[in-house]
Amino acid sequence: MACCGNCFCCQCCCREGETRTPEELTILGEIREEEDEILPRKDYESLDYDRCINEPYVEVLEGMDNKKAGKYEAVRWLMVFAIGVTVGLVGLFVDFFVHLFTKIKFSLVGDSIEKCSDKGCLALSLLELLSFNMFFVFIASVLVLIEPVAAGSGIPEIKSYLNGVKIPGIVRLRTFLCKAAGVLFSVAGGLFVGKEGPMIHSGAIVGAGLPQFQSISFKRIKFDFPYFRSDRDKRDFVSAGAAAGVAAAFGAPIGGTLFSLEEGSSFWNQALTWKVLFCSMSATFTLNFFRSGINFNKWGSFQLPGLLNFGEFKCPDGDKNCHLWTVVDLAFFVLMGVVGGLLGALFNCMNKSLSKYRIKHIHPKAKFIRVLESLLITMVTSVVVFAASLLLGECRDLSSPTNHNSTLSGSDDINSTIRQFFCTNKTYNDMATLFFNPQEAAIHQLFHQDGTFSPVTLSLFFLLYFLLACWTYGVSVPSGLFVPSLLCGASFGRLVANILKVKLGMDIYSGTFALIGAAAFLGGVVRMTISLTVILIESTNEITYGLPIMITLMVAKWTGDFFNKGIYDIHIQLRGVPLLEWETEVEMDKLTASDIMEPNLTYVYPHTRVQSLVSILRTTVYHAFPVVTENRQNERDFMKGNILVSNNIRFKKSSVMTRAGEQRRRCQSMKSYPSSELKNVCDEQNAAAEPAEEGEDLLQQMLERRHAPYPNLYPDQSPSEEWTMEERFRPLTFHGLILRSQLVNLLIRGVCYSESQSSATQPRLSFTEMTEDYPRYPDIHDLDLALLNPRMIVDVTPYMNPCPYTVSPNTRISQVFNLFRTMGLRHLPVVNAVGEIVGIITRHNLTHEFLVAKLRQHYITI
Amino acid sequence: MACCGNCFCCQCCCREGETRTPEELTILGEIREEEDEILPRKDYESLDYDRCINEPYVEVLEGMDNKKAGKYEAVRWLMVFAIGVTVGLVGLFVDFFVHLFTKIKFSLVGDSIEKCSDKGCLALSLLELLSFNMFFVFIASVLVLIEPVAAGSGIPEIKSYLNGVKIPGIVRLRTFLCKAAGVLFSVAGGLFVGKEGPMIHSGAIVGAGLPQFQSISFKRIKFDFPYFRSDRDKRDFVSAGAAAGVAAAFGAPIGGTLFSLEEGSSFWNQALTWKVLFCSMSATFTLNFFRSGINFNKWGSFQLPGLLNFGEFKCPDGDKNCHLWTVVDLAFFVLMGVVGGLLGALFNCMNKSLSKYRIKHIHPKAKFIRVLESLLITMVTSVVVFAASLLLGECRDLSSPTNHNSTLSGSDDINSTIRQFFCTNKTYNDMATLFFNPQEAAIHQLFHQDGTFSPVTLSLFFLLYFLLACWTYGVSVPSGLFVPSLLCGASFGRLVANILKVKLGMDIYSGTFALIGAAAFLGGVVRMTISLTVILIESTNEITYGLPIMITLMVAKWTGDFFNKGIYDIHIQLRGVPLLEWETEVEMDKLTASDIMEPNLTYVYPHTRVQSLVSILRTTVYHAFPVVTENRQNERDFMKGNILVSNNIRFKKSSVMTRAGEQRRRCQSMKSYPSSELKNVCDEQNAAAEPAEEGEDLLQQMLERRHAPYPNLYPDQSPSEEWTMEERFRPLTFHGLILRSQLVNLLIRGVCYSESQSSATQPRLSFTEMTEDYPRYPDIHDLDLALLNPRMIVDVTPYMNPCPYTVSPNTRISQVFNLFRTMGLRHLPVVNAVGEIVGIITRHNLTHEFLVAKLRQHYITI
Repeated sequence: MACCGNCFCCQCCCREGETRTPEELTILGEIREEEDEILPRKDYESLDYDRCINEPYVEVLEGMDNKKAGKYEAVRWLMVFAIGVTVGLVGLFVDFFVHLFTKIKFSLVGDSIEKCSDKGCLALSLLELLSFNMFFVFIASVLVLIEPVAAGSGIPEIKSYLNGVKIPGIVRLRTFLCKAAGVLFSVAGGLFVGKEGPMIHSGAIVGAGLPQFQSISFKRIKFDFPYFRSDRDKRDFVSAGAAAGVAAAFGAPIGGTLFSLEEGSSFWNQALTWKVLFCSMSATFTLNFFRSGINFNKWGSFQLPGLLNFGEFKCPDGDKNCHLWTVVDLAFFVLMGVVGGLLGALFNCMNKSLSKYRIKHIHPKAKFIRVLESLLITMVTSVVVFAASLLLGECRDLSSPTNHNSTLSGSDDINSTIRQFFCTNKTYNDMATLFFNPQEAAIHQLFHQDGTFSPVTLSLFFLLYFLLACWTYGVSVPSGLFVPSLLCGASFGRLVANILKVKLGMDIYSGTFALIGAAAFLGGVVRMTISLTVILIESTNEITYGLPIMITLMVAKWTGDFFNKGIYDIHIQLRGVPLLEWETEVEMDKLTASDIMEPNLTYVYPHTRVQSLVSILRTTVYHAFPVVTENRQNERDFMKGNILVSNNIRFKKSSVMTRAGEQRRRCQSMKSYPSSELKNVCDEQNAAAEPAEEGEDLLQQMLERRHAPYPNLYPDQSPSEEWTMEERFRPLTFHGLILRSQLVNLLIRGVCYSESQSSATQPRLSFTEMTEDYPRYPDIHDLDLALLNPRMIVDVTPYMNPCPYTVSPNTRISQVFNLFRTMGLRHLPVVNAVGEIVGIITRHNLTHEFLVAKLRQHYITI
Repeated sequence: MACCGNCFCCQCCCREGETRTPEELTILGEIREEEDEILPRKDYESLDYDRCINEPYVEVLEGMDNKKAGKYEAVRWLMVFAIGVTVGLVGLFVDFFVHLFTKIKFSLVGDSIEKCSDKGCLALSLLELLSFNMFFVFIASVLVLIEPVAAGSGIPEIKSYLNGVKIPGIVRLRTFLCKAAGVLFSVAGGLFVGKEGPMIHSGAIVGAGLPQFQSISFKRIKFDFPYFRSDRDKRDFVSAGAAAGVAAAFGAPIGGTLFSLEEGSSFWNQALTWKVLFCSMSATFTLNFFRSGINFNKWGSFQLPGLLNFGEFKCPDGDKNCHLWTVVDLAFFVLMGVVGGLLGALFNCMNKSLSKYRIKHIHPKAKFIRVLESLLITMVTSVVVFAASLLLGECRDLSSPTNHNSTLSGSDDINSTIRQFFCTNKTYNDMATLFFNPQEAAIHQLFHQDGTFSPVTLSLFFLLYFLLACWTYGVSVPSGLFVPSLLCGASFGRLVANILKVKLGMDIYSGTFALIGAAAFLGGVVRMTISLTVILIESTNEITYGLPIMITLMVAKWTGDFFNKGIYDIHIQLRGVPLLEWETEVEMDKLTASDIMEPNLTYVYPHTRVQSLVSILRTTVYHAFPVVTENRQNERDFMKGNILVSNNIRFKKSSVMTRAGEQRRRCQSMKSYPSSELKNVCDEQNAAAEPAEEGEDLLQQMLERRHAPYPNLYPDQSPSEEWTMEERFRPLTFHGLILRSQLVNLLIRGVCYSESQSSATQPRLSFTEMTEDYPRYPDIHDLDLALLNPRMIVDVTPYMNPCPYTVSPNTRISQVFNLFRTMGLRHLPVVNAVGEIVGIITRHNLTHEFLVAKLRQHYITI
């Protein structure tokens, strides 16, 4: 169950109207009525990908040299390798047990059928199959009850995470255990689900967790560079882990790397990409090593790349006229792409309606209802599989394979998974061969079986599979979508091949058409582009399939996009995750930053009373607060405030670096160098009778400032409700951003000073102390107020981010969007030409829905 | 000749000391003496990758809707496809003629040798070979004389271009013709050069040129969205073209895409990457289609992917114990990686010294000296090839291949390129087989020949080839480095395989070792990472080689980096290109933006006299000027100026969006919506008795302002030389950036108004008029001053970039660097907390050399 498996989350979905401000409702109202869509929810947080270079961090930096950086880099490589190997081993574990369980199940039930076909006790065989399947699925379903986030494929969650959205619980150890064990049982239980999506999710969790664990044990042995404890590093490792997951699942290390680039989206980070590729390679080859060892008993060689393998596409050796594909086939591939896109859109549409129904009617009920739904699906699936295999199959000749038996060593494997239910010696039951096998074996059959499947069988198989897979995706078990889609699409492709080959007598290679059909349907469902192309190319291990696969995927995506979004995006939308698209539409550039920013700011002063901070933190839900000073050029007009105002101005003036000051500083540091032009400038500096202290840089000054005694009066209230608009929105000079978690941390650790002392007496926190509680920082409501003196003052300047990226109010949306998405920002202050903050932009101001609403408003205003 | 082939450029190299300011010399002096390095030159410009959203552009935007955007997108796809196909055809052309010429040459000379071996007229054969080679190389060399930029591989140039540096002439049609024709002759001339590098360069030129050409023809049929005429689009198309070049050269579409990502470096642009991949695919399959058609006469099938193909690595069918590689081999691969890295470093070191020698002693002399050098190298190469083939070879058994002749259809091709000079029937001359063949055939021999090469032959071959290839790279012909490096490395790898197999009796697959040797040496020379890994995997068409290739390349790169840079980076450095690395070292974060910025600014006012503009443009070399107003809070102190000052302040005040103003604007546009909270705020607005005009947005105000009559007095001079430092560096509020080319354009088109009129009378330029002259804008010195009235005033505000990205002075270098590199910026203004510009950062302030110098200075100051 990918969508709203989390009960809490589901309730939010249902009550989301309440969490919205009136302004939003006004703006968004029209859309809601029209489409009845679930809008992005405001309670998702962004990750902090951008570094906050505050004083504790600078301290760490100062102690940094190239040797230390090198050591740290080495640890990082090691970590990446460890992640790769672990993901490979997880894949091995899942694969091994799935194989074992499936083998036991099919051989027992198969034997029973063979026996009963004479005795007429087929009902017993069905019962046997049912009890196996329902037992397995029951376990899977119970595991998901323990950790609801483990439901579904996990790709929507990973996509959201890599996009920069924090989703509670998705990278926890418990999720990992439930997911990895759950997928094993749901696949073994005969549901039409794949294990690839959950593998990718498991990989991501390994990536998130392994370096954190290391970090804890390193602390004991004095590892004094605790960089891994930040959202930035965690997300980087999650990219690596997810890539390793793809690599292990498909044996596609390059595809995995591109997958995490495509979803991870941050700027092209060369060093990271290189590590991600290495991680993927490690995962692929760990899996390969052990699988080759276990399956063929050839330890040390590498012959079984990924969990899902398409086998070798190859013309029979003797046949010189055989081509995998020719230029004529391309036209059919394009058509198949269109059909695949249409089918995919239909699949997505049906699944979306079903998911909405589940959110409304199933999730609010007791949890065991979900288990019952899983069991119901299992029952129906099992009966369909059983009935179709026995009743609907045709007996087909095995004639063609025997021709090439001598040369094609691969065909032995193919024929080993053939089912002969009720068929005579030289024929096989085509429906049973597809249904009564693990899905991977069925895909192999469709790709490589030289014998023919009857068109009726293929059509029926496609239809049944399509419907059941659509029903299954979204139910409360860990369930991937890749393999079912591939299998479904392959039967469609094989059907096309049958028609072309048998009815029209064309000279084509059936396997290629099955592959293209699989690509077309999968592309129509998931709508991935670059990474999917590369994954499929790598899975086939045949570079010449590059062009047809790419064209098919392109066409399928374009066709599908005409109707709806990809299945993962649909489920992300249903969860209300504020995902950022790749780029904004060109039309959005009619808006500027000031059109979309949030102008109502809650801010803190550089020096604030504990009392005010606690009240701000308790009464707002913002995750960051701009640190500002009030900027009143004509102070006499605004004497409702108090002395802090003038102090604020002093802070501002002295913290600003001026050109003259900068030049003076340069002169001082350059005086030792001989240079004619510079000397002139420096001589002038002596002539100018300004105080020299202004010539120092901001940081130095801020440090010094804290030694100076601080005025005794403070405003005890935040802006009063009765103030006029001019007072409420008075000019605020922007100095930095401080996060909620940092403020709470400061309060908990008692970082403050009393009015009678200078701010220099305030205790200083180290970088380690600031990040110790990562990733679960304490909440303001956990704070024991009795321990705090509300009159004490907190100097936030050393801990704020003094220079986040900012934009000017008339920056166009495309530029804002690029900056925000590329740099992985969480808060983007909008600062006007004189350094005053006029608003703030977060992820929620950049979602497609919000921009569309604002654009509509823009047109109305015009 | 990659380095300083351009005569102009070379002179600059030699005179570079003069172009540097005294400050720089002071800072950089120490390094120069120590290492005698060539420092980045200041006269290279950056590309304008970031969009300038000024009024003409906004006009285009306003007329933009989704339909138009869709049409434009379709043209873009078409263009990308056209580029791919064209690059494929270019590859075909080069390949066809190289094959033709080489075939004629080798068959004629080969026959002559066969004949003469009896008659003793071998001198005649040598003469024949010499005359062929020298004739071909002479043509190649003369072509390079016509267009000096066509020398060398072109990869350093493309790397620089994609990095964002404008290098004159590298994407011109003439360069393309000389390069494509030249490489054909230099390869046919038997030099130890490859055609892959020049193919990539050719592809890039096609990418740059094709859409420009289209754009011209489109203008005739009223294509009113002339977006392709910008550096941004051109660079995107160049990425696609370069990727197509790689794809055509190696049959590696994914590798090509990653190559252009790795070098192109901008933010991960999904839509662009998808197009680049499509372009690469088109190129690969165009080439594939025609080559399969021509070579096998099988039109419509696809069997010959790239120009360089490694053939199929495959165990003989019968042999079940044969593995391409096992886990034990990995240890050897790591060792080979180390050796490859060392050899590569040696190669680079030798080539660097040679190139420096060439820059100093050959380039200043007459041009025909370069032709003579090429001919000398050709002569030596030919003699070595001839002599080695005849004298140094051993006769080896052809025994092993015949065993598998029946099964391995590929071995027929292998044996067809065997040379038997002086050897009896069942043996072959191993040295001649390697030397007396096209290089691709020799690589095939080393990879796939089951017969053995003697260790002595391999060592000798490696040594001779290494020295000659090193001498050749950098001479005045188009010359790639991939194939020579691969061949050199393959012989090394085969040598290792020989030793392990024959001397130690290990059961290994020789081809794998040859491949790994080739990867190790190539990796050691070029030091590419991700893209090279993928290119090699795709060229072998064998996914299982992923891990060993990656590990080898990693080790080779690390080993090599210990000594020097990659060969391309060395040549880039020799040219003095200010390339930006991937990221800054951690240590650099001790510096802030204010440490590295250029504080001496030349600026313009929003309204400036023609006279001042011309004088500024003629006396400075900057490519962009900040548009500023002077910011004097206490005007009385600075009355040396005149009325413009107060006007400036008025401009500033009114152009600044305040929070209260913003809120008021919102209230007005929202009044129609029913909302309780909003109403309250809006009521307040009525209470506040501010003039309503402030509530409008910047653009509207700027437009209105221009209707107001403009004061009649202007400062006629730029900041006076006699002013004090306070005056020279007085606070400047930053409003935007205007490019030199834009200013010149305004002057040439007479965009100005007279003092007596309002600025609204100034003619307005459309976006098309602004970009018409792209890419070669007129120079200020081309301007006929007689046509200009120096007292007229230019209003630059509609044409400036009003909201470029900015940073605050205390932003850390890593953040500055990321922003600059990722967004592809050209000028990054440093703006302090009150909106005053204090400096500007360009590419030159971010080069490694500059940062190192500044860091050193930082330590001294501490």
